Amino acid sequence: MSLFITLEGGEGSGKSTVLRNIVSALEKEGYAVITTREPGGTPISEEIRNVILDKKNTDMDPRTEALLYAASRRQHLVQKVWPALKEGKIVLCDRYLDSSLAYQGGARNLGIDEVLSINMFATEGTFPDITLLFDLDPEVGLSRIAANAGREVNRLDLEKIEFHKQVRATFLSLAKRYSDRFVVLDASKNVEDVTADALAAIKARLEK
Amino acid sequence: MSLFITLEGGEGSGKSTVLRNIVSALEKEGYAVITTREPGGTPISEEIRNVILDKKNTDMDPRTEALLYAASRRQHLVQKVWPALKEGKIVLCDRYLDSSLAYQGGARNLGIDEVLSINMFATEGTFPDITLLFDLDPEVGLSRIAANAGREVNRLDLEKIEFHKQVRATFLSLAKRYSDRFVVLDASKNVEDVTADALAAIKARLEK
Repeated sequence: MSLFITLEGGEGSGKSTVLRNIVSALEKEGYAVITTREPGGTPISEEIRNVILDKKNTDMDPRTEALLYAASRRQHLVQKVWPALKEGKIVLCDRYLDSSLAYQGGARNLGIDEVLSINMFATEGTFPDITLLFDLDPEVGLSRIAANAGREVNRLDLEKIEFHKQVRATFLSLAKRYSDRFVVLDASKNVEDVTADALAAIKARLEK
Repeated sequence: MSLFITLEGGEGSGKSTVLRNIVSALEKEGYAVITTREPGGTPISEEIRNVILDKKNTDMDPRTEALLYAASRRQHLVQKVWPALKEGKIVLCDRYLDSSLAYQGGARNLGIDEVLSINMFATEGTFPDITLLFDLDPEVGLSRIAANAGREVNRLDLEKIEFHKQVRATFLSLAKRYSDRFVVLDASKNVEDVTADALAAIKARLEK
């Protein structure tokens, strides 16, 4: 049974670690799993991502940025996500369209429905089956990042704390709007507990 | 009085030559004119354009392409077109959103209204005051291009003739839909006559 699972949340919410744990657990039980994230190694999406994250491009308009994310998403979907789902795999994707809705639609004030409209064009309505929201106070998340010396700080990290609070609030409003697919995880818990909560949500869906 | 004029039409329709003639004529009469085309020297739009036109990227999905054109358009509008219009200039832009509607919406079958929706996001409804459509049988246009050794053949030129016929048909349907701003020019005429027709349409608008 194919399943499209996305992981969403602010910076430093522990998504990546929990993701690795989920994958091991599911593979141990014999599921065929792939993990990916946009741009996901698809060369065109990588090129687009380079334009977005280029630190030179500080004068990038927010709508330009939103369109570039949608373009990268489209190509990743066509070349990586859809083929894996067609093969019956569980696809775990680190960030997807809800990130655009929260960051560009909410925090950058472009409007959730406006950003949704270009993403409907990009995805042709491919929504995740499950969206795991790693919910965390952004001050906790950013302090975790600062403590983590192994990770390069990018342009988004540098945005001010109010921005991240707006991101969190928008994610929580999306969880209400799309309550059928959203699972809100308390990411202030330790990694083992968050992993257990995430796995329980996935198992409930797999065993339905 | 600011005026936003776009030039549209298939390959080899003589747009560029007529554009130069129009500019000289308007400048002689004292108008402040700028000519541009996407990406228009704006570095972010240039980077996006490089991704679109990269001959390596043959597996680019048509929706990815449409989103990238919209992104490049947005940035060009913000950094170049809007500032010039604000200064009261006449902006002559070689291709604009109608090209996306004709190429991606019509000829690539994404649907005119679907491609329009992402372009409404990109332009916030900035339509041209006048759109000069250089209408020409695509076989005539492409044979003109082959004869013109000074111009590099790009990926779009290589598409087959049926594609270009569909582009032409879509442009003509847009001219009916947006009859208030479209002026259809018979581009099979010689350059002097097409220039005169184009100038007459612009003058009529300037003197209104």
